[in-house]
Amino acid sequence: MGRASLRSPWPTPAARARDREAKPIAVLYAAVQLFNERSFSTTSLDEVAARLNVTKPILYRYFTSKDQILFECVRLGLEQLLEAASTAADAPGSAFDRMGALMRRYALIMTQDFGICVIRTGDHELSTASRRQFRALKRKIDMVIRGIIAEGIVDGSIARCDVRMTAFAIAGALNWVARWYDSKGPQQPDDLADAMVAVLARLITPTVRLLPGA
Amino acid sequence: MGRASLRSPWPTPAARARDREAKPIAVLYAAVQLFNERSFSTTSLDEVAARLNVTKPILYRYFTSKDQILFECVRLGLEQLLEAASTAADAPGSAFDRMGALMRRYALIMTQDFGICVIRTGDHELSTASRRQFRALKRKIDMVIRGIIAEGIVDGSIARCDVRMTAFAIAGALNWVARWYDSKGPQQPDDLADAMVAVLARLITPTVRLLPGA
Repeated sequence: MGRASLRSPWPTPAARARDREAKPIAVLYAAVQLFNERSFSTTSLDEVAARLNVTKPILYRYFTSKDQILFECVRLGLEQLLEAASTAADAPGSAFDRMGALMRRYALIMTQDFGICVIRTGDHELSTASRRQFRALKRKIDMVIRGIIAEGIVDGSIARCDVRMTAFAIAGALNWVARWYDSKGPQQPDDLADAMVAVLARLITPTVRLLPGA
Repeated sequence: MGRASLRSPWPTPAARARDREAKPIAVLYAAVQLFNERSFSTTSLDEVAARLNVTKPILYRYFTSKDQILFECVRLGLEQLLEAASTAADAPGSAFDRMGALMRRYALIMTQDFGICVIRTGDHELSTASRRQFRALKRKIDMVIRGIIAEGIVDGSIARCDVRMTAFAIAGALNWVARWYDSKGPQQPDDLADAMVAVLARLITPTVRLLPGA
Protein backbone atom coordinates (compact mmCIF):
# COMPACT_ATOMS: atom_id res chain seq x y z
CA MET A 1 0.00 0.00 0.00
CA GLY A 2 1.33 3.46 -0.97
CA ARG A 3 1.45 6.44 1.37
CA ALA A 4 -1.47 8.16 -0.36
CA SER A 5 -3.92 5.68 1.16
CA LEU A 6 -3.00 6.95 4.61
CA ARG A 7 -4.70 10.33 3.93
CA SER A 8 -7.70 10.84 6.22
CA PRO A 9 -11.08 10.83 4.48
CA TRP A 10 -12.21 13.57 6.97
CA PRO A 11 -11.51 17.17 6.02
CA THR A 12 -8.90 19.16 7.93
CA PRO A 13 -10.16 22.14 9.98
CA ALA A 14 -8.69 24.46 7.33
CA ALA A 15 -10.56 22.66 4.55
CA ARG A 16 -13.73 22.74 6.61
CA ALA A 17 -13.43 26.51 7.07
CA ARG A 18 -12.91 26.93 3.33
CA ASP A 19 -16.02 24.88 2.58
CA ARG A 20 -18.05 26.85 5.11
CA GLU A 21 -17.36 30.01 3.13
CA ALA A 22 -17.73 28.34 -0.26
CA LYS A 23 -21.12 26.79 0.38
CA PRO A 24 -23.40 29.86 0.37
CA ILE A 25 -21.51 31.19 -2.67
CA ALA A 26 -22.06 27.87 -4.45
CA VAL A 27 -25.79 28.17 -3.71
CA LEU A 28 -25.86 31.65 -5.29
CA TYR A 29 -23.98 30.43 -8.38
CA ALA A 30 -26.34 27.50 -8.88
CA ALA A 31 -29.39 29.73 -8.32
CA VAL A 32 -28.31 32.58 -10.59
CA GLN A 33 -27.66 30.18 -13.45
CA LEU A 34 -31.16 28.76 -13.15
CA PHE A 35 -32.73 32.23 -12.80
CA ASN A 36 -30.97 33.31 -16.01
CA GLU A 37 -31.69 30.13 -17.98
CA ARG A 38 -35.40 30.25 -17.18
CA SER A 39 -36.57 32.93 -14.80
CA PHE A 40 -36.77 33.64 -11.12
CA SER A 41 -40.47 32.83 -10.88
CA THR A 42 -40.22 29.47 -12.66
CA THR A 43 -37.17 28.25 -10.71
CA SER A 44 -37.77 26.22 -7.56
CA LEU A 45 -35.36 25.82 -4.68
CA ASP A 46 -35.63 22.06 -5.19
CA GLU A 47 -34.00 22.54 -8.58
CA VAL A 48 -31.28 24.74 -7.10
CA ALA A 49 -30.60 22.09 -4.47
CA ALA A 50 -30.56 19.31 -7.07
CA ARG A 51 -27.80 21.13 -8.99
CA LEU A 52 -25.69 21.00 -5.85
CA ASN A 53 -26.50 17.36 -5.05
CA VAL A 54 -28.27 18.32 -1.85
CA THR A 55 -31.86 18.75 -0.71
CA LYS A 56 -33.76 21.97 -0.11
CA PRO A 57 -33.39 22.00 3.71
CA ILE A 58 -29.61 22.34 3.26
CA LEU A 59 -30.17 25.65 1.41
CA TYR A 60 -32.15 26.99 4.37
CA ARG A 61 -29.00 26.77 6.49
CA TYR A 62 -27.68 29.70 4.46
CA PHE A 63 -30.72 31.57 3.17
CA THR A 64 -34.21 32.15 4.52
CA SER A 65 -36.04 32.16 1.17
CA LYS A 66 -35.83 32.19 -2.62
CA ASP A 67 -36.41 35.96 -2.41
CA GLN A 68 -33.32 36.34 -0.25
CA ILE A 69 -31.28 34.32 -2.75
CA LEU A 70 -32.41 36.58 -5.60
CA PHE A 71 -31.62 39.62 -3.49
CA GLU A 72 -28.09 38.35 -2.85
CA CYS A 73 -27.55 37.55 -6.55
CA VAL A 74 -28.59 41.06 -7.64
CA ARG A 75 -26.55 42.60 -4.82
CA LEU A 76 -23.44 40.67 -5.89
CA GLY A 77 -23.88 41.82 -9.50
CA LEU A 78 -24.38 45.45 -8.50
CA GLU A 79 -21.39 45.34 -6.17
CA GLN A 80 -19.23 44.01 -8.98
CA LEU A 81 -20.32 47.01 -11.07
CA LEU A 82 -19.73 49.44 -8.22
CA GLU A 83 -16.30 47.97 -7.62
CA ALA A 84 -15.46 48.29 -11.32
CA ALA A 85 -16.54 51.93 -11.22
CA SER A 86 -14.76 52.78 -7.95
CA THR A 87 -11.54 51.04 -9.00
CA ALA A 88 -11.53 53.08 -12.21
CA ALA A 89 -12.32 56.28 -10.33
CA ASP A 90 -9.35 55.77 -7.99
CA ALA A 91 -6.85 54.57 -10.63
CA PRO A 92 -4.07 56.78 -11.96
CA GLY A 93 -4.18 58.07 -15.54
CA SER A 94 -6.44 60.33 -17.54
CA ALA A 95 -10.20 60.24 -17.02
CA PHE A 96 -10.53 58.98 -20.60
CA ASP A 97 -8.31 55.96 -19.90
CA ARG A 98 -10.12 55.28 -16.64
CA MET A 99 -13.50 55.35 -18.42
CA GLY A 100 -12.08 52.86 -20.92
CA ALA A 101 -11.07 50.50 -18.12
CA LEU A 102 -14.45 50.94 -16.43
CA MET A 103 -16.42 50.23 -19.60
CA ARG A 104 -14.34 47.15 -20.37
CA ARG A 105 -14.88 45.66 -16.92
CA TYR A 106 -18.58 46.63 -16.98
CA ALA A 107 -19.05 44.91 -20.36
CA LEU A 108 -17.42 41.73 -19.03
CA ILE A 109 -19.68 41.69 -15.96
CA MET A 110 -22.66 41.94 -18.34
CA THR A 111 -21.60 38.62 -19.91
CA GLN A 112 -21.47 36.93 -16.50
CA ASP A 113 -24.24 35.38 -14.43
CA PHE A 114 -24.61 37.93 -11.63
CA GLY A 115 -24.46 40.86 -14.05
CA ILE A 116 -27.07 39.25 -16.30
CA CYS A 117 -29.25 38.71 -13.23
CA VAL A 118 -29.09 42.43 -12.35
CA ILE A 119 -30.46 43.39 -15.76
CA ARG A 120 -33.01 40.61 -16.06
CA THR A 121 -34.56 41.14 -12.64
CA GLY A 122 -37.61 43.35 -12.86
CA ASP A 123 -38.43 45.78 -10.07
CA HIS A 124 -41.65 43.87 -9.38
CA GLU A 125 -39.64 40.74 -8.49
CA LEU A 126 -38.08 42.57 -5.55
CA SER A 127 -39.52 43.73 -2.25
CA THR A 128 -39.91 47.47 -1.69
CA ALA A 129 -36.94 47.46 0.70
CA SER A 130 -34.68 45.59 -1.77
CA ARG A 131 -35.75 47.89 -4.58
CA ARG A 132 -34.85 50.94 -2.51
CA GLN A 133 -31.46 49.47 -1.58
CA PHE A 134 -30.67 48.60 -5.21
CA ARG A 135 -31.78 51.98 -6.47
CA ALA A 136 -29.28 53.55 -4.07
CA LEU A 137 -26.51 51.23 -5.37
CA LYS A 138 -27.38 52.00 -9.01
CA ARG A 139 -27.36 55.71 -8.22
CA LYS A 140 -23.91 55.34 -6.65
CA ILE A 141 -22.59 53.62 -9.79
CA ASP A 142 -24.14 56.34 -11.97
CA MET A 143 -22.58 59.05 -9.81
CA VAL A 144 -19.10 57.51 -10.03
CA ILE A 145 -19.40 57.32 -13.85
CA ARG A 146 -20.63 60.92 -14.04
CA GLY A 147 -17.75 61.97 -11.79
CA ILE A 148 -15.11 60.46 -14.07
CA ILE A 149 -16.70 62.05 -17.15
CA ALA A 150 -16.80 65.43 -15.41
CA GLU A 151 -13.12 65.06 -14.41
CA GLY A 152 -12.28 64.24 -18.02
CA ILE A 153 -13.95 67.41 -19.25
CA VAL A 154 -11.72 69.32 -16.82
CA ASP A 155 -8.48 67.44 -17.63
CA GLY A 156 -9.28 67.69 -21.35
CA SER A 157 -9.21 63.94 -22.02
CA ILE A 158 -12.99 63.74 -22.46
CA ALA A 159 -15.18 65.78 -24.81
CA ARG A 160 -17.52 68.42 -23.43
CA CYS A 161 -20.90 66.69 -23.28
CA ASP A 162 -24.19 66.36 -21.46
CA VAL A 163 -22.69 64.40 -18.55
CA ARG A 164 -25.92 62.86 -17.23
CA MET A 165 -27.17 61.81 -20.65
CA THR A 166 -23.75 60.47 -21.72
CA ALA A 167 -23.54 58.39 -18.53
CA PHE A 168 -27.04 57.03 -19.21
CA ALA A 169 -26.16 56.23 -22.83
CA ILE A 170 -22.98 54.38 -21.82
CA ALA A 171 -24.68 52.44 -19.02
CA GLY A 172 -27.64 51.63 -21.28
CA ALA A 173 -25.47 50.32 -24.11
CA LEU A 174 -23.48 48.22 -21.61
CA ASN A 175 -26.51 46.98 -19.68
CA TRP A 176 -28.10 45.85 -22.92
CA VAL A 177 -25.17 43.47 -23.49
CA ALA A 178 -26.74 41.29 -20.79
CA ARG A 179 -29.84 40.99 -22.97
CA TRP A 180 -28.18 40.11 -26.30
CA TYR A 181 -24.97 38.36 -25.30
CA ASP A 182 -25.09 34.70 -26.23
CA SER A 183 -22.61 32.54 -24.35
CA LYS A 184 -23.00 29.91 -27.08
CA GLY A 185 -22.24 32.45 -29.83
CA PRO A 186 -18.87 32.87 -31.58
CA GLN A 187 -17.82 36.14 -29.87
CA GLN A 188 -15.77 35.66 -26.71
CA PRO A 189 -16.44 38.03 -23.78
CA ASP A 190 -12.99 39.64 -24.07
CA ASP A 191 -13.49 40.41 -27.75
CA LEU A 192 -17.00 41.66 -27.15
CA ALA A 193 -15.77 43.96 -24.38
CA ASP A 194 -12.94 45.33 -26.56
CA ALA A 195 -15.32 45.97 -29.46
CA MET A 196 -17.90 47.65 -27.22
CA VAL A 197 -15.28 49.89 -25.60
CA ALA A 198 -13.96 50.90 -29.04
CA VAL A 199 -17.48 51.94 -30.06
CA LEU A 200 -18.42 53.70 -26.81
CA ALA A 201 -15.10 55.55 -26.63
CA ARG A 202 -16.47 57.71 -29.46
CA LEU A 203 -19.05 59.11 -27.03
CA ILE A 204 -16.32 60.70 -24.93
CA THR A 205 -13.41 61.25 -27.34
CA PRO A 206 -12.54 64.92 -27.85
CA THR A 207 -12.91 65.54 -31.57
CA VAL A 208 -12.94 68.11 -34.31
CA ARG A 209 -16.15 67.70 -36.25
CA LEU A 210 -15.73 67.58 -40.03
CA LEU A 211 -18.09 69.93 -41.84
CA PRO A 212 -20.29 68.12 -44.38
CA GLY A 213 -18.40 67.96 -47.63
CA ALA A 214 -15.10 68.97 -46.00
CA MET B 1 -86.87 72.75 -25.60
CA GLY B 2 -83.82 73.41 -27.85
CA ARG B 3 -82.91 71.37 -30.90
CA ALA B 4 -80.03 69.64 -29.09
CA SER B 5 -82.47 67.56 -27.05
CA LEU B 6 -83.73 65.97 -30.26
CA ARG B 7 -80.41 64.13 -30.74
CA SER B 8 -80.87 60.37 -30.48
CA PRO B 9 -79.24 58.75 -27.48
CA TRP B 10 -78.40 55.74 -29.72
CA PRO B 11 -75.17 55.90 -31.67
CA THR B 12 -75.22 56.31 -35.45
CA PRO B 13 -73.90 53.39 -37.55
CA ALA B 14 -70.74 55.41 -38.24
CA ALA B 15 -70.15 56.02 -34.54
CA ARG B 16 -70.78 52.35 -33.84
CA ALA B 17 -68.16 51.33 -36.42
CA ARG B 18 -65.67 53.74 -34.82
CA ASP B 19 -66.30 52.29 -31.38
CA ARG B 20 -65.94 48.76 -32.72
CA GLU B 21 -62.38 49.56 -33.79
CA ALA B 22 -61.59 51.65 -30.72
CA LYS B 23 -62.62 49.06 -28.15
CA PRO B 24 -59.83 46.46 -28.51
CA ILE B 25 -57.28 49.30 -28.70
CA ALA B 26 -58.71 50.76 -25.48
CA VAL B 27 -58.29 47.35 -23.83
CA LEU B 28 -54.63 47.26 -24.86
CA TYR B 29 -54.02 50.79 -23.56
CA ALA B 30 -55.62 50.01 -20.20
CA ALA B 31 -53.71 46.74 -19.95
CA VAL B 32 -50.29 48.09 -20.92
CA GLN B 33 -50.56 50.85 -18.34
CA LEU B 34 -51.26 48.33 -15.59
CA PHE B 35 -48.50 45.98 -16.81
CA ASN B 36 -46.02 48.86 -16.68
CA GLU B 37 -47.19 50.27 -13.34
CA ARG B 38 -46.94 46.90 -11.62
CA SER B 39 -46.10 43.92 -13.78
CA PHE B 40 -47.74 41.49 -16.14
CA SER B 41 -47.90 38.69 -13.56
CA THR B 42 -49.49 40.80 -10.82
CA THR B 43 -52.13 42.42 -13.07
CA SER B 44 -55.50 40.71 -13.33
CA LEU B 45 -57.96 41.07 -16.20
CA ASP B 46 -60.55 42.15 -13.63
CA GLU B 47 -58.40 45.21 -12.96
CA VAL B 48 -58.02 45.92 -16.68
CA ALA B 49 -61.80 45.67 -17.08
CA ALA B 50 -62.40 47.93 -14.07
CA ARG B 51 -60.28 50.66 -15.66
CA LEU B 52 -62.64 50.58 -18.65
CA ASN B 53 -65.81 50.48 -16.54
CA VAL B 54 -66.71 47.02 -17.82
CA THR B 55 -66.45 43.46 -16.52
CA LYS B 56 -64.00 40.78 -17.54
CA PRO B 57 -66.33 38.90 -19.95
CA ILE B 58 -66.42 42.02 -22.15
CA LEU B 59 -62.64 41.72 -22.65
CA TYR B 60 -63.04 38.15 -23.87
CA ARG B 61 -65.01 39.48 -26.84
CA TYR B 62 -61.73 40.86 -28.15
CA PHE B 63 -58.98 38.71 -26.66
CA THR B 64 -58.77 35.08 -25.64
CA SER B 65 -56.43 35.53 -22.66
CA LYS B 66 -54.15 37.83 -20.68
CA ASP B 67 -51.25 36.23 -22.57
CA GLN B 68 -52.76 37.32 -25.87
CA ILE B 69 -53.20 40.87 -24.55
CA LEU B 70 -49.50 41.00 -23.53
CA PHE B 71 -48.53 39.60 -26.93
CA GLU B 72 -50.50 42.34 -28.70
CA CYS B 73 -48.97 45.06 -26.47
CA VAL B 74 -45.41 43.91 -27.22
CA ARG B 75 -46.24 43.50 -30.91
CA LEU B 76 -47.62 47.05 -31.09
CA GLY B 77 -44.47 48.44 -29.44
CA LEU B 78 -42.15 46.50 -31.74
CA GLU B 79 -44.15 47.55 -34.80
CA GLN B 80 -43.84 51.18 -33.76
CA LEU B 81 -40.07 50.70 -33.61
CA LEU B 82 -39.97 48.89 -36.95
CA GLU B 83 -42.06 51.64 -38.53
CA ALA B 84 -39.71 54.29 -37.13
CA ALA B 85 -36.75 52.39 -38.59
CA SER B 86 -38.36 51.72 -41.98
CA THR B 87 -39.62 55.29 -42.35
CA ALA B 88 -36.09 56.57 -41.70
CA ALA B 89 -34.60 54.03 -44.09
CA ASP B 90 -36.90 55.16 -46.90
CA ALA B 91 -36.65 58.91 -46.24
CA PRO B 92 -34.60 61.25 -48.42
CA GLY B 93 -31.41 62.85 -47.07
CA SER B 94 -28.07 61.59 -45.83
CA ALA B 95 -27.84 58.39 -43.81
CA PHE B 96 -26.61 60.48 -40.88
CA ASP B 97 -29.75 62.62 -40.92
CA ARG B 98 -31.94 59.57 -41.28
CA MET B 99 -30.25 57.91 -38.28
CA GLY B 100 -30.92 61.10 -36.33
CA ALA B 101 -34.62 60.95 -37.18
CA LEU B 102 -34.74 57.24 -36.35
CA MET B 103 -33.04 57.67 -32.97
CA ARG B 104 -35.34 60.56 -32.04
CA ARG B 105 -38.50 58.61 -32.83
CA TYR B 106 -37.09 55.49 -31.12
CA ALA B 107 -36.32 57.49 -27.96
CA LEU B 108 -39.87 58.87 -27.90
CA ILE B 109 -41.37 55.38 -28.25
CA MET B 110 -39.25 54.33 -25.25
CA THR B 111 -41.07 56.95 -23.12
CA GLN B 112 -44.48 55.58 -24.17
CA ASP B 113 -46.46 52.67 -22.80
CA PHE B 114 -46.10 50.11 -25.59
CA GLY B 115 -42.38 50.80 -25.97
CA ILE B 116 -41.84 50.47 -22.23
CA CYS B 117 -43.75 47.19 -22.32
CA VAL B 118 -41.42 45.81 -25.03
CA ILE B 119 -38.39 46.41 -22.81
CA ARG B 120 -39.96 45.32 -19.53
CA THR B 121 -41.35 42.05 -20.83
CA GLY B 122 -38.98 39.19 -20.12
CA ASP B 123 -38.63 36.33 -22.56
CA HIS B 124 -40.00 33.96 -19.94
CA GLU B 125 -43.31 35.85 -19.90
CA LEU B 126 -43.92 34.91 -23.52
CA SER B 127 -44.77 31.62 -25.18
CA THR B 128 -42.13 29.99 -27.37
CA ALA B 129 -44.07 30.97 -30.50
CA SER B 130 -44.41 34.63 -29.42
CA ARG B 131 -40.75 34.75 -28.48
CA ARG B 132 -39.76 33.47 -31.92
CA GLN B 133 -42.01 35.99 -33.65
CA PHE B 134 -40.65 38.87 -31.58
CA ARG B 135 -37.07 37.82 -32.11
CA ALA B 136 -37.71 38.00 -35.85
CA LEU B 137 -39.19 41.51 -35.49
CA LYS B 138 -36.25 42.67 -33.34
CA ARG B 139 -33.83 41.25 -35.89
CA LYS B 140 -35.64 43.16 -38.66
CA ILE B 141 -35.31 46.41 -36.69
CA ASP B 142 -31.61 45.71 -36.08
CA MET B 143 -31.05 44.97 -39.76
CA VAL B 144 -32.69 48.23 -40.86
CA ILE B 145 -30.49 50.19 -38.42
CA ARG B 146 -27.36 48.38 -39.60
CA GLY B 147 -28.39 49.06 -43.20
CA ILE B 148 -28.63 52.82 -42.66
CA ILE B 149 -25.26 52.88 -40.85
CA ALA B 150 -23.66 50.90 -43.70
CA GLU B 151 -25.16 53.32 -46.25
CA GLY B 152 -23.77 56.24 -44.26
CA ILE B 153 -20.27 54.77 -44.35
CA VAL B 154 -20.61 54.64 -48.14
CA ASP B 155 -22.12 58.12 -48.58
CA GLY B 156 -19.55 59.53 -46.13
CA SER B 157 -22.09 60.96 -43.69
CA ILE B 158 -21.35 58.31 -41.04
CA ALA B 159 -17.99 57.38 -39.55
CA ARG B 160 -16.36 54.07 -40.41
CA CYS B 161 -17.24 51.81 -37.48
CA ASP B 162 -18.06 48.30 -36.34
CA VAL B 163 -21.59 48.37 -37.77
CA ARG B 164 -23.04 45.52 -35.71
CA MET B 165 -21.60 46.76 -32.43
CA THR B 166 -22.56 50.38 -33.13
CA ALA B 167 -26.15 49.32 -33.89
CA PHE B 168 -26.21 47.34 -30.62
CA ALA B 169 -24.81 50.29 -28.66
CA ILE B 170 -27.39 52.70 -30.11
CA ALA B 171 -30.32 50.30 -29.57
CA GLY B 172 -29.09 49.50 -26.05
CA ALA B 173 -28.77 53.14 -25.02
CA LEU B 174 -32.25 53.84 -26.45
CA ASN B 175 -33.87 50.72 -25.01
CA TRP B 176 -32.53 51.62 -21.59
CA VAL B 177 -34.53 54.87 -21.69
CA ALA B 178 -37.60 52.71 -21.04
CA ARG B 179 -36.01 51.60 -17.77
CA TRP B 180 -34.96 55.00 -16.39
CA TYR B 181 -37.47 57.42 -17.92
CA ASP B 182 -39.74 58.84 -15.25
CA SER B 183 -42.97 60.30 -16.58
CA LYS B 184 -43.31 62.24 -13.32
CA GLY B 185 -39.80 63.71 -13.64
CA PRO B 186 -38.96 67.20 -14.94
CA GLN B 187 -37.62 66.18 -18.37
CA GLN B 188 -40.24 66.12 -21.14
CA PRO B 189 -40.05 63.30 -23.72
CA ASP B 190 -39.19 65.72 -26.54
CA ASP B 191 -36.28 67.22 -24.60
CA LEU B 192 -35.08 63.80 -23.53
CA ALA B 193 -35.16 62.58 -27.13
CA ASP B 194 -33.25 65.63 -28.38
CA ALA B 195 -30.61 65.24 -25.67
CA MET B 196 -30.22 61.52 -26.33
CA VAL B 197 -29.88 62.03 -30.08
CA ALA B 198 -27.25 64.74 -29.50
CA VAL B 199 -25.23 62.28 -27.39
CA LEU B 200 -25.66 59.25 -29.65
CA ALA B 201 -24.88 61.23 -32.80
CA ARG B 202 -21.26 61.17 -31.60
CA LEU B 203 -21.21 57.41 -32.20
CA ILE B 204 -21.68 57.93 -35.94
CA THR B 205 -20.28 61.42 -36.64
CA PRO B 206 -17.25 61.39 -38.96
CA THR B 207 -14.44 63.00 -36.99
CA VAL B 208 -10.78 63.83 -36.87
CA ARG B 209 -9.39 62.52 -33.61
CA LEU B 210 -7.27 64.96 -31.65
CA LEU B 211 -3.97 63.54 -30.55
CA PRO B 212 -3.46 63.72 -26.77
CA GLY B 213 -1.93 67.09 -25.98
CA ALA B 214 -2.68 68.47 -29.44
